[in-house]
Amino acid sequence: MADSKLLPSPGGDPVAVETLLQDVFGIVVDEAIRKGTSASEKVCEWKEPEELKQLLDLELQSQGESQEQILERCRAVIRYSVKTGHPRFFNQLFSGLDPHSLAGRIITESLNTSPYTYEIAPVFVLMEEEVLKKLRALVGWSSGDGVFCPGGSISNMYAINLARYQRYPDCKQRGLRALPPLALFTSKECHYSINKGAAFLGLGTDSVRVVKADERGKMIPEDLERQISLAEAEGAVPFLVSATSGTTVLGAFDPLDAIADVCQRHGLWLHVDAAWGGSVLLSQTHRHLLDGIQRADSVAWNPHKLLAAGLQCSALLLQDTSNLLKRCHGFQASYLFQQDKFYDVALDTGDKVVQCGRRVDCLKLWLMWKAQGGQGLEQRIDQAFALARYLVEEIKKREGFELVMEPEFVNVCFWFVPPSLRGKQASPQYSQRLSQVAPVLKERMVKEGSMMIGYQPHGTHGNFFRMVVANPTLTCADIDFLLNELERLGQDL
Amino acid sequence: MADSKLLPSPGGDPVAVETLLQDVFGIVVDEAIRKGTSASEKVCEWKEPEELKQLLDLELQSQGESQEQILERCRAVIRYSVKTGHPRFFNQLFSGLDPHSLAGRIITESLNTSPYTYEIAPVFVLMEEEVLKKLRALVGWSSGDGVFCPGGSISNMYAINLARYQRYPDCKQRGLRALPPLALFTSKECHYSINKGAAFLGLGTDSVRVVKADERGKMIPEDLERQISLAEAEGAVPFLVSATSGTTVLGAFDPLDAIADVCQRHGLWLHVDAAWGGSVLLSQTHRHLLDGIQRADSVAWNPHKLLAAGLQCSALLLQDTSNLLKRCHGFQASYLFQQDKFYDVALDTGDKVVQCGRRVDCLKLWLMWKAQGGQGLEQRIDQAFALARYLVEEIKKREGFELVMEPEFVNVCFWFVPPSLRGKQASPQYSQRLSQVAPVLKERMVKEGSMMIGYQPHGTHGNFFRMVVANPTLTCADIDFLLNELERLGQDL
Repeated sequence: MADSKLLPSPGGDPVAVETLLQDVFGIVVDEAIRKGTSASEKVCEWKEPEELKQLLDLELQSQGESQEQILERCRAVIRYSVKTGHPRFFNQLFSGLDPHSLAGRIITESLNTSPYTYEIAPVFVLMEEEVLKKLRALVGWSSGDGVFCPGGSISNMYAINLARYQRYPDCKQRGLRALPPLALFTSKECHYSINKGAAFLGLGTDSVRVVKADERGKMIPEDLERQISLAEAEGAVPFLVSATSGTTVLGAFDPLDAIADVCQRHGLWLHVDAAWGGSVLLSQTHRHLLDGIQRADSVAWNPHKLLAAGLQCSALLLQDTSNLLKRCHGFQASYLFQQDKFYDVALDTGDKVVQCGRRVDCLKLWLMWKAQGGQGLEQRIDQAFALARYLVEEIKKREGFELVMEPEFVNVCFWFVPPSLRGKQASPQYSQRLSQVAPVLKERMVKEGSMMIGYQPHGTHGNFFRMVVANPTLTCADIDFLLNELERLGQDL
Repeated sequence: MADSKLLPSPGGDPVAVETLLQDVFGIVVDEAIRKGTSASEKVCEWKEPEELKQLLDLELQSQGESQEQILERCRAVIRYSVKTGHPRFFNQLFSGLDPHSLAGRIITESLNTSPYTYEIAPVFVLMEEEVLKKLRALVGWSSGDGVFCPGGSISNMYAINLARYQRYPDCKQRGLRALPPLALFTSKECHYSINKGAAFLGLGTDSVRVVKADERGKMIPEDLERQISLAEAEGAVPFLVSATSGTTVLGAFDPLDAIADVCQRHGLWLHVDAAWGGSVLLSQTHRHLLDGIQRADSVAWNPHKLLAAGLQCSALLLQDTSNLLKRCHGFQASYLFQQDKFYDVALDTGDKVVQCGRRVDCLKLWLMWKAQGGQGLEQRIDQAFALARYLVEEIKKREGFELVMEPEFVNVCFWFVPPSLRGKQASPQYSQRLSQVAPVLKERMVKEGSMMIGYQPHGTHGNFFRMVVANPTLTCADIDFLLNELERLGQDL
């Protein structure tokens, strides 16, 4: 008998399944959510890599483990992980823990599907379209297209690929060798994914022409004009400008209207990398920072950043209504996109993407939006701006803190000048010594687990801290803590 | 006062947060897990798109909603979603609900981080390396490199990009125009992502040379030789062969040793797309299907398919020890990959990828492996093969079922021949009428919600069903149900 070889079903005890998941969920609530967002707990529990390897006992064996061992492993994973939802995690462009988004993410995981066809993801195919429509409306478009991508870097790549395809549809079949040399334009403050994308897409980083930015980090439209002329004079064909709304370090917004004028004059695709700054469109008070975005051809916007929708939630939005996404990326795989289905196969949106299976990234944002309403989300944005302003004023008041510049967004860049360097600005080693401060303070704060904030050099500036006000639960007390803690950690320097 | 404008913190009530999450988790357990995996419940609740839009009330408004409304929305999302963990969901190359993987995914979501640096993802940076090491060991490599990608399509793209970079490092900077015309080789049974990748990477689909496959769907090495000569004669430079271990429709395994011989002779990069079949490496009984895989330069392997690790879990594995991934993709962004950190910055692995932020995809697989052990996972694979064999024997016994071919994997391709067509093979319209059967049965099963199985035309064959035995909880009873249900649904045809 063929079936005599069959083994007993290994996962078939529903009670055991539920018990395990209940136990794990209890651990998640206690350790990751309650403690993980409590200011009285550590933001991280630093271990040296070798020690952490031992503590985690990572090796995968032949034998399985008991339920109790597995639960202990869950606790250890959470214990030694950084708590990005903690009110003193200021390290990245995302932070905070939105409960409705997390609820949406848990449902997403439990349903485990891929939105390539209406057949297996009916709810999410419709929901994705509705969420994208809402985001497009905030950009200022009453129609268009779009898709969720695995991160802003890939959203930016999509934009570059779509722009070249629109101009040279031959490229899909014949490749770049059939095309003239292409040039795309972005400012020196752009995210590094533009360069990564140019390399990955076969254009090469030489095709990325770097436009100057002003001292605030904003692209200079006159230099864009110059760079376009220069590229043309060198025999390259300009095809795309990537402007940035919310640069990574300084939080600068490129002047979109002036850039759109240039694009219009030269017939160039305007992409706006608003991965970081896009969420400002929700604020009536601050959305002027993105004036002109409605003139873009494509926009990348990551609600997983300022809206705390959870990694990853990155929308690529298009003004196009000619099915460009599907024409550019589609291959009509007959095993998936059958044309003789019993429903409208236009609902099978999976051929718009270069992935096959992909994650459902819309539910977490949709559920959070339903719960908070557009107004609730707008309040968060306004709150973040207000707290950033509070931080700026406090920095100005305190001795030992110096702003890199007045921010226009929620990135606040500043130096902590330790006691030994105060008043020594004229000293020849001042800049070099100041640059060594941030790495030392970073080590101290991480080893204590009291907070996390990023630093970097930038342009001619040595290392400075970049505070990111993104966690929607932050208050003035957390801002005060940041400054007090830097003073405490650096008092002997 | 600057802070007088601040709003009360909107998400600051920890008790409300926990209550919401507890309530949602209860709904998930009841609806998605208990009912969602119960054979006595429907696998899907079909609604026409317009009706479903109404039922879901998708529109996003300015006003937020009450907790009760939000919970009702969670129930609706689950109710109308397809239950991919259901024992009668046979529609894709993934199915089933592994509780340990789901536990890992819930923890991943609650920790919400990105493994670009050790600084913010210490556990996951180390864990990813350990999991990749284990997968590499199963391929047969004692060293190497790798990374988790957002799906097999992007893993395949990485392989193509790495192969061309290794041969022409100039490509990163100067682009494809600086290179001779390139050619890559794959069989006509390959996944469509190879073509999508060639287009996206700027090579163009013309660069994909299609190698013949035999009647089982396996690449013919002699034709690979011919295609290489042909490409060279046309002035193209062959650089990569993509073999497939487990084709999408037929489940065929290309003869890797013979293909590796050809690659060795011509100095070509051998990539193995084992997205579907890679998990067979866990089975001592069946891993011979991938004999020769240790000779590959790169392997794509999706544990989210046959191992039910949850979407997405896709590893790209490399034999390379020269830091090719980082050299090819890296850009050393100074705000993220600071070189003056207080720990070994080789642990900051994020520059290996073309994404910036990316999801943690290792924990779910690691936790499942710890719980089941390699032996438990091996049993699942062997179980799937045994059940596929059981299905084949049953098909042979029953009137009205016809195998497309003897399978070598867990894809079982067959026709259901309805009563009116039996014995009519010689009739001129037989093939055409048989091809219309699967779409009708698909509509009926989906509208009843009794099961889901995919169909497609393939080569000269009209529509046939592709059964995928992947859910680790399947038993002979589920296989019997499949056949009985097709008979019931098709008895009047």
